[in-house]
Amino acid sequence: MNRNLDIGVAGLGRMGKRHVHTLLYRTPRAKVVAVENKEYREFRIAVYSSYEEMLAHPGLNAVWISTSTDVHASQSLAAIGKGLHVLCEKPLSTDLAEVQSVIHAARANPSIKVMAGFSRRFDASYRDTSDKIFNQNAIGKPFMVRSNTCDLRDESGFFVKYAARNGGIFVDCAIHDIDLSLWFLDNPVPKACWAAGTLQHHPELQQLSDVDNAVGIVEFWGGKIAYFYCSRTQAHGHDVCTEVTGTEGKLMVNVLPRKNNVILADKLGMRHEVQPEYWERFEDAFAREANEFVDAVVNDKPVPIPLETGIKVMKIGWALQQALLTGKVSLFSESGELLDG
Amino acid sequence: MNRNLDIGVAGLGRMGKRHVHTLLYRTPRAKVVAVENKEYREFRIAVYSSYEEMLAHPGLNAVWISTSTDVHASQSLAAIGKGLHVLCEKPLSTDLAEVQSVIHAARANPSIKVMAGFSRRFDASYRDTSDKIFNQNAIGKPFMVRSNTCDLRDESGFFVKYAARNGGIFVDCAIHDIDLSLWFLDNPVPKACWAAGTLQHHPELQQLSDVDNAVGIVEFWGGKIAYFYCSRTQAHGHDVCTEVTGTEGKLMVNVLPRKNNVILADKLGMRHEVQPEYWERFEDAFAREANEFVDAVVNDKPVPIPLETGIKVMKIGWALQQALLTGKVSLFSESGELLDG
Amino acid sequence: MNRNLDIGVAGLGRMGKRHVHTLLYRTPRAKVVAVENKEYREFRIAVYSSYEEMLAHPGLNAVWISTSTDVHASQSLAAIGKGLHVLCEKPLSTDLAEVQSVIHAARANPSIKVMAGFSRRFDASYRDTSDKIFNQNAIGKPFMVRSNTCDLRDESGFFVKYAARNGGIFVDCAIHDIDLSLWFLDNPVPKACWAAGTLQHHPELQQLSDVDNAVGIVEFWGGKIAYFYCSRTQAHGHDVCTEVTGTEGKLMVNVLPRKNNVILADKLGMRHEVQPEYWERFEDAFAREANEFVDAVVNDKPVPIPLETGIKVMKIGWALQQALLTGKVSLFSESGELLDG
Amino acid sequence: MNRNLDIGVAGLGRMGKRHVHTLLYRTPRAKVVAVENKEYREFRIAVYSSYEEMLAHPGLNAVWISTSTDVHASQSLAAIGKGLHVLCEKPLSTDLAEVQSVIHAARANPSIKVMAGFSRRFDASYRDTSDKIFNQNAIGKPFMVRSNTCDLRDESGFFVKYAARNGGIFVDCAIHDIDLSLWFLDNPVPKACWAAGTLQHHPELQQLSDVDNAVGIVEFWGGKIAYFYCSRTQAHGHDVCTEVTGTEGKLMVNVLPRKNNVILADKLGMRHEVQPEYWERFEDAFAREANEFVDAVVNDKPVPIPLETGIKVMKIGWALQQALLTGKVSLFSESGELLDG
Repeated sequence: MNRNLDIGVAGLGRMGKRHVHTLLYRTPRAKVVAVENKEYREFRIAVYSSYEEMLAHPGLNAVWISTSTDVHASQSLAAIGKGLHVLCEKPLSTDLAEVQSVIHAARANPSIKVMAGFSRRFDASYRDTSDKIFNQNAIGKPFMVRSNTCDLRDESGFFVKYAARNGGIFVDCAIHDIDLSLWFLDNPVPKACWAAGTLQHHPELQQLSDVDNAVGIVEFWGGKIAYFYCSRTQAHGHDVCTEVTGTEGKLMVNVLPRKNNVILADKLGMRHEVQPEYWERFEDAFAREANEFVDAVVNDKPVPIPLETGIKVMKIGWALQQALLTGKVSLFSESGELLDG
Repeated sequence: MNRNLDIGVAGLGRMGKRHVHTLLYRTPRAKVVAVENKEYREFRIAVYSSYEEMLAHPGLNAVWISTSTDVHASQSLAAIGKGLHVLCEKPLSTDLAEVQSVIHAARANPSIKVMAGFSRRFDASYRDTSDKIFNQNAIGKPFMVRSNTCDLRDESGFFVKYAARNGGIFVDCAIHDIDLSLWFLDNPVPKACWAAGTLQHHPELQQLSDVDNAVGIVEFWGGKIAYFYCSRTQAHGHDVCTEVTGTEGKLMVNVLPRKNNVILADKLGMRHEVQPEYWERFEDAFAREANEFVDAVVNDKPVPIPLETGIKVMKIGWALQQALLTGKVSLFSESGELLDG
Repeated sequence: MNRNLDIGVAGLGRMGKRHVHTLLYRTPRAKVVAVENKEYREFRIAVYSSYEEMLAHPGLNAVWISTSTDVHASQSLAAIGKGLHVLCEKPLSTDLAEVQSVIHAARANPSIKVMAGFSRRFDASYRDTSDKIFNQNAIGKPFMVRSNTCDLRDESGFFVKYAARNGGIFVDCAIHDIDLSLWFLDNPVPKACWAAGTLQHHPELQQLSDVDNAVGIVEFWGGKIAYFYCSRTQAHGHDVCTEVTGTEGKLMVNVLPRKNNVILADKLGMRHEVQPEYWERFEDAFAREANEFVDAVVNDKPVPIPLETGIKVMKIGWALQQALLTGKVSLFSESGELLDG
Repeated sequence: MNRNLDIGVAGLGRMGKRHVHTLLYRTPRAKVVAVENKEYREFRIAVYSSYEEMLAHPGLNAVWISTSTDVHASQSLAAIGKGLHVLCEKPLSTDLAEVQSVIHAARANPSIKVMAGFSRRFDASYRDTSDKIFNQNAIGKPFMVRSNTCDLRDESGFFVKYAARNGGIFVDCAIHDIDLSLWFLDNPVPKACWAAGTLQHHPELQQLSDVDNAVGIVEFWGGKIAYFYCSRTQAHGHDVCTEVTGTEGKLMVNVLPRKNNVILADKLGMRHEVQPEYWERFEDAFAREANEFVDAVVNDKPVPIPLETGIKVMKIGWALQQALLTGKVSLFSESGELLDG
């Protein structure tokens, strides 16, 4: 029996190439097939000119979808339709109905593994945080989460070019922070949220009704709170920080981000460099994600993150984005349904 | 000519005693008179049984008011009425009309120095932050402030006992953070704010319509934003942190609070202790505040912080408290006047 | 043409298993063969009961020797004799003549790649340090190195059991620090050294004339200095730190070792955990080492670290150990030969 | 009864001015008299043109000697001869016989308080270290001290001008580190020491047989060890760090020196500034030193640091300096007497 998994990577942008790297270098039971990339020629990977052709690759078992968000759902559905397992970059879609359609397809095909890539769930520090909260009771009852996703300012034009498809700063950028808050606050139900934003560096975003820096608060039913800061304009690097406060303590993840273990002391004082991108921060998490996904498929286990998680996260992201645009408080029912403004 | 200043300290609670210490140990041109305290007997300080009697102390030049907030304004007015200079703990009052009455009295007596003690304005790190922002242009244009005031949980009952008089968590606890945001964002005008809170440890606060943990966002006219976290329930110490983000960088003050320079490495890892109270964090700031106030009086200079600052800060604190209680967004006019909800 | 490399791992102790893991999970062009380990059964790795039998594995290209130090040299020679490439754990031997014999064999077989595993040479932080010194000129001319290798105290008896074969604390434990000092001081020649040690926790070491904590200074010709602290008895974890001081600055690597990005704030203050072992600190370095060795073989490039480096390092380690035992200064000629005491 | 102390400050160089500041601003029971300095004119301090005249100031009780090291002993003796209490900057002399003569004079006048200013003994972090070691048993039995005194490079010529009088790098610069090692290792007796140095920036020191960077090891009887690094040439600031390792843990003081609580994040990464001088690091310690000295005099208590401590420290400093110059190991008897080389 072949316990290995032949995976095709869809989308060879910046992240897609990294996923190929992860599969080649760090996922021994996966075999990458069906992508085009000169750099990896010595690994003899097949080449296809369209997603559909790739899906027809002989022996293909799974796809890793790393295209732009607007085709995530349709590509996922196509793969499920062919009986292929799916690991899809978050979010499945910026449209809730589309997300729901993927969930329906997945439920209708229970032998197929479908997972949305909330990569931070695989990060060693966040897992340690979860372990300290839920297994070691290190901070008592958690009730407050602060979480940031702050990107290095992109001077290349890349970010603005693709901004139109990303659903807005809270949907695109805070989605991981929202997910972390649900994780560490033990699946609370949202009650109300509000947000404020500003445009400091990418005036092109104005016509997309978006901003490049925003803060938001989510109040949950039961006295729990999360608040977020998202930014596209940091000067110093990719700065992703999360704090969880409980009744008996606080856990802080990455409050002083650092590229490596080096400090330079010179006339300016003492300094360390910061990772430029989330890849440097989360490279190990992506490797663990790939291995756990492969393991779930090969050994027919549940995927580590249920697809439904994505729905909850998206609803909150969308409500924050709405608050940002309207200036009004977004309210939810006690079952977590967004109420009309 | 006597260049020294005879100062009476009103209120010998925890902070009042510290102010006596500051005047004795760190303010050479001040002479403390007119307080009762056995500990300081060898410094031969006069003893009075009421505020009024103390004001009549022969040769008294000034008072440092460190009583509970509800008598700040009346005591300030009484001192001004006797021609005494006044250094009053923040806030002058939780009632805007009372604050205004002190400002009027001060304006009517321009030779008398009246200052509200926003002690953080005298802290070396915050001054360095200001210097880096406004003189060194270290972070470009500042547009975002995050600031926390998180107190060590008080198990003694002291905090709850006096909670009724403090005006609520945003008025009492966030007032310094609001002040810092006005300072570092260059006196912006508030546009809207919202807040959410929770009660985790002091159920007695419920009948005061207050909470023991709260977060709030203030949006200013012109695309600037501040957000705050206040807490009465920290397990690890007094945790006061401020970050200012600008178009070219970020300044972080005290993100990892520490009691001293010691780290202990043992079976638990590496740890440092945290200051238990704001006194340990701001002792030097209080000394500088006292010396600069004395200098303003002795050399007839303007006090370092105009009284009007207090008004602006209080308005925002009160609007956040209102948002916390109502769940609604508090809105301001373009001139910074709070609009009816 | 098969560009992959079939590698057998010799020695399946703690590190050998990790090398298998590195080859399986992080070295795509290597194929592990010829080891026994139930854990890796699903990777279908061949099983041999002796080193000699493993060398006869059909198609074997290379060996990774991870046995105890006393057989490193003989196993390396045996592999070279069979035309196999060799990656051998440091040190090749504690005996200089044995090291020399491996170097001779390697020179006599120039098509065979032989490398001693100075894994720190592959660590991202040390490489960044080297880049900052030699390419960015970040600290001017480097003249002083401080480097520590401090192990978590081993309570299991494992360490003491194998201590007799390791050549003493400076040969076994400081060898990487000595190597780093040669690297960052640009290959200086030793002039004199001295050392002092103490026995705090492993009394069994006394009969081996060894200690469990030691410090040593190496003075180099030309005004450069290195000093080292080695310990077997740390309470908090594996603490490996290096500082390089130059005429215009200082580089510090890992002065506050941390297991991950998590800080816990509670009644004890703020703390982070420390890696328990060098594996957690250097896992990525081992992966890079394996990949660069494979690349050197597959593409017939020089190995990244010349074998001769090991000789220089060993001479200094041995001289420090001698100083430790005799209490006398060990002196070297200007060509770096150890002079008689 | 006058419980205040009239103190004259001798020597108004950089430190003398700071001592006047400390006495004026932070030592309420001391009254500074008898110094000349325009800056302090408004404090009405008397002016004298010679040390002898100052000693004759009416009502003078004590002197704080802050002149160059070569006159410390003679000025101390003169003050003792006039019945004045003495607080003298360390070291009392670079000549052991001179130190001994001051000790004899002090012993002959037991009512006179004579103290050498080992200011670090009054630093809050070092006191906390001592408390954790000796009262909290936080690290088990301490056996190893690492301590640095690394000065910012002086480009003004000031340092070199006075270098001839300072007794050499280990006597001048490491004296506090040696003192700390005696403190934290519980008064061990030296057994052997060795040192190595280099000249990187101040070639003028060569004719003084001195260096500008040096490391030294002191082995004590009973298995304890201290090692030191002194430097005159740091680019980043005044870097003073001490680590104490014990059988159950390690205490680290000031491993990452910082000027204040500010971190700047910008294109270079994240950085903090470093204190330029020991004054910024130890200002509070000097204030505590002054107050405790005044308290010892006013209340007739023993001075906090016995004069004999200085002798022990000096002997080790001198032995390290000797080792530096000769290249030979300096040996001590079991009673701590330096043996002939």
